[in-house]
Amino acid sequence: MARKDADQVAAPARLDGEEAAVRVAVLGCGNVGGALVATLLSDSDAIAQRSGVRLELVGVAVGDPARPRPGVPAALITGDAKGLVSDPRVDVVVELIGGVDPARGLVESALAAGKPVVTANKELLAAHGSALAEAAASVGLDLLYEAAVAGAIPLIRPLRESLAGEPIRRVMGIVNGTTNYILTTMSEEGVSYTQALAEAQRLGLAERDPSADVDGHDAAAKAAILAALAFHCDVVADDVPREGIATVAPVDISFAARLGYVVKLLAVVERTNGTGGKGTDTEVPEISVRVHPAMLPRTHPLAAVRGAFNAVFVEGDNAGELMLYGLGAGGRPTASAVLGDLIDAAHHLRSGSSARFVPRVRPRIRPTDDLRCAWYMNIDVVDRPGVLAAVAQLFGDNGVSIRSMEQVGLGDEARLIFLTHVAREGDVQRTLSGLRGLEVVDHVGGVLRVMGDEEEA
Amino acid sequence: MARKDADQVAAPARLDGEEAAVRVAVLGCGNVGGALVATLLSDSDAIAQRSGVRLELVGVAVGDPARPRPGVPAALITGDAKGLVSDPRVDVVVELIGGVDPARGLVESALAAGKPVVTANKELLAAHGSALAEAAASVGLDLLYEAAVAGAIPLIRPLRESLAGEPIRRVMGIVNGTTNYILTTMSEEGVSYTQALAEAQRLGLAERDPSADVDGHDAAAKAAILAALAFHCDVVADDVPREGIATVAPVDISFAARLGYVVKLLAVVERTNGTGGKGTDTEVPEISVRVHPAMLPRTHPLAAVRGAFNAVFVEGDNAGELMLYGLGAGGRPTASAVLGDLIDAAHHLRSGSSARFVPRVRPRIRPTDDLRCAWYMNIDVVDRPGVLAAVAQLFGDNGVSIRSMEQVGLGDEARLIFLTHVAREGDVQRTLSGLRGLEVVDHVGGVLRVMGDEEEA
Repeated sequence: MARKDADQVAAPARLDGEEAAVRVAVLGCGNVGGALVATLLSDSDAIAQRSGVRLELVGVAVGDPARPRPGVPAALITGDAKGLVSDPRVDVVVELIGGVDPARGLVESALAAGKPVVTANKELLAAHGSALAEAAASVGLDLLYEAAVAGAIPLIRPLRESLAGEPIRRVMGIVNGTTNYILTTMSEEGVSYTQALAEAQRLGLAERDPSADVDGHDAAAKAAILAALAFHCDVVADDVPREGIATVAPVDISFAARLGYVVKLLAVVERTNGTGGKGTDTEVPEISVRVHPAMLPRTHPLAAVRGAFNAVFVEGDNAGELMLYGLGAGGRPTASAVLGDLIDAAHHLRSGSSARFVPRVRPRIRPTDDLRCAWYMNIDVVDRPGVLAAVAQLFGDNGVSIRSMEQVGLGDEARLIFLTHVAREGDVQRTLSGLRGLEVVDHVGGVLRVMGDEEEA
Repeated sequence: MARKDADQVAAPARLDGEEAAVRVAVLGCGNVGGALVATLLSDSDAIAQRSGVRLELVGVAVGDPARPRPGVPAALITGDAKGLVSDPRVDVVVELIGGVDPARGLVESALAAGKPVVTANKELLAAHGSALAEAAASVGLDLLYEAAVAGAIPLIRPLRESLAGEPIRRVMGIVNGTTNYILTTMSEEGVSYTQALAEAQRLGLAERDPSADVDGHDAAAKAAILAALAFHCDVVADDVPREGIATVAPVDISFAARLGYVVKLLAVVERTNGTGGKGTDTEVPEISVRVHPAMLPRTHPLAAVRGAFNAVFVEGDNAGELMLYGLGAGGRPTASAVLGDLIDAAHHLRSGSSARFVPRVRPRIRPTDDLRCAWYMNIDVVDRPGVLAAVAQLFGDNGVSIRSMEQVGLGDEARLIFLTHVAREGDVQRTLSGLRGLEVVDHVGGVLRVMGDEEEA
């Protein structure tokens, strides 16, 4: 049935040949939807010339149809999203409402009606991405979402197509512009987290309630989508442990700088058993997926990603290191990624094909305690002989090897700045609780993972 | 006729369904071909699992079939490339011979025989890319070449698909790893061009005759391919003016550093009339395409691209700034890009579709004299009163406005380091010849374009 509808919809476009317009419905007319609608209305000729497909906007579903929208013909506006999706004049549906409901039902109805869907909805994909991808594949239709992760950056398509044969080891992303702006400002202007957050709010880069960004919820949803793409795994946002940036202190950012590092909030997805180079993909994949701040060497490509920019760093067995960089948010950049998908969907409708689908498997998620990386620790101790010995003893007893230690005098206290060698996270956590129990330790300050270092791997 | 063959070739794969292998012929077994052959022989299962297509290597054409090739079954080796291309057992042809002949004829025969082609051959594409693209489109077959520019970096597909609707303003690329390694070494180790080149040769990063790299020929071929993709223009390597890096002096690299800049060899392609946002694409496009060293601000994303890495920086009206970064050369990285294309071609054979084609137009090429950017100049003058006035006068007379000047004493000489505001190149060249004629000017040293600066645009 659905398949049948798909043919009925796709057929006219094919029959009418190159000049037939592909008719587009846009659900949601906020920041991104508004930019897309403006482009479709004003640049249709240029888009047709550049891409070979003519896109015709036939409807825009909004929450409040009464609200005036300058430049958008009233005839295109409707409050009835469900009706617009099922309108036979619509060939392709663009979902820019965001959130799980009602977006989920509308995407499902569009696919059931034989209409490919383009969406930028990371919450929906991080919760129900696998089911929706299967639904689309079962009727041979596109479900495209380049704009859902890292805005304008071409990322989904390279992962899904260019790297289709590549044994990917790890993907590390700066995928939240708000937190990257805050951390960049703290490091370049030496201000506190609170000051940097206030500045981001003043510039409209952070919400009044910033928790979705600063606590890592937004990055976690994107991490789940990246894991699904990089490893063909069924991963949801709830699988992703999060640490936010609210606890990152200026003192740790400046110690990091002295040691040659910068602090970034990273979404990390890693393959922790064979990357498949030699057929080991036949095992159930084991992966790690997480969001946390980390110290990166100043020379690491991600370290140069400043302000509200995003970047995703991919490590593959054959391709080596790749990075994709650009604007991760904003109406026009995000709309440009949606437009690229829309042109793809239109071409596929023409040829009766669709983006390929690789079934996803439920992976084993590696326990956090078993993850391995180097660590930075900032510890205040009483300044008297034998203290360092006691502290070092505790590291040793827990199997954590110290790479460097710097002592900073603080009157009758001393601050010890440690970098460890690569260690098991469980051992590091035991070391930290041991330190908190030591009578000579006044305070365990900043603790950060160190990634992207030569020592790794 | 060709179209008919295409159907005959494509049909079996479709009929046999998901498990039918797509049969691959590889022409050339050097650095890249050897890595691809090894991957196809050892990782076929993993690739099938990751990508949904099974690739079967059915033949490898080499110059010297007698030469032993460990790990490659002798039965696959042949000296008869033409015979292999026409072999009915072959579904897809991968051309990794390089150079224009005999590669061109082999690619044409493959397409005529209804077989999609994957190539990494920049010389061929920069000389005959438009004709070959039309030949492929006319029979509805793929001609894919992700590996021809910037090796492993997903670049062609993002430009052709993700940014299909984007009004691209400019593409600036570090697309030659040899010259980037040399410039990075000069700037980080303070050595001379000759020393850095010798080091690159010792590491196998530069040929014994390095002219193809250091004189910008390699970058010019890639610039032509980038221009064709970014602006749908028919541009060939001979359209691309080149300046190499042999004349870049350590003194200018260190002055650049003091001023907050790094020196990179850039391939630049720019749209110099309307970027089409408002339908102005209907004019014949006017573009600039060129290769030259340039100073970039230390904070520019391209400035962080070190050693043998490549990166391509794209500026669009809507997408904003994008950068794609990775390894631009090497057997395995380049083979990984070829593999991505091969999987694409296999999927397209299955679905009977092919990569879309947008006809290319012959653009107007903007005369170099009319290009506008800021400039750096290093000028030795006699050290006496009134000299600066005479020099400044000459700038003014030629309509070049000075942004900053620093005087460095050299005994009875003085060195003047100028940064200009954005100026017309013709005016700058007149200024330079005027300076060379001035009695008070002993020597006009390093002269470099300054790009990526706030002042631009």
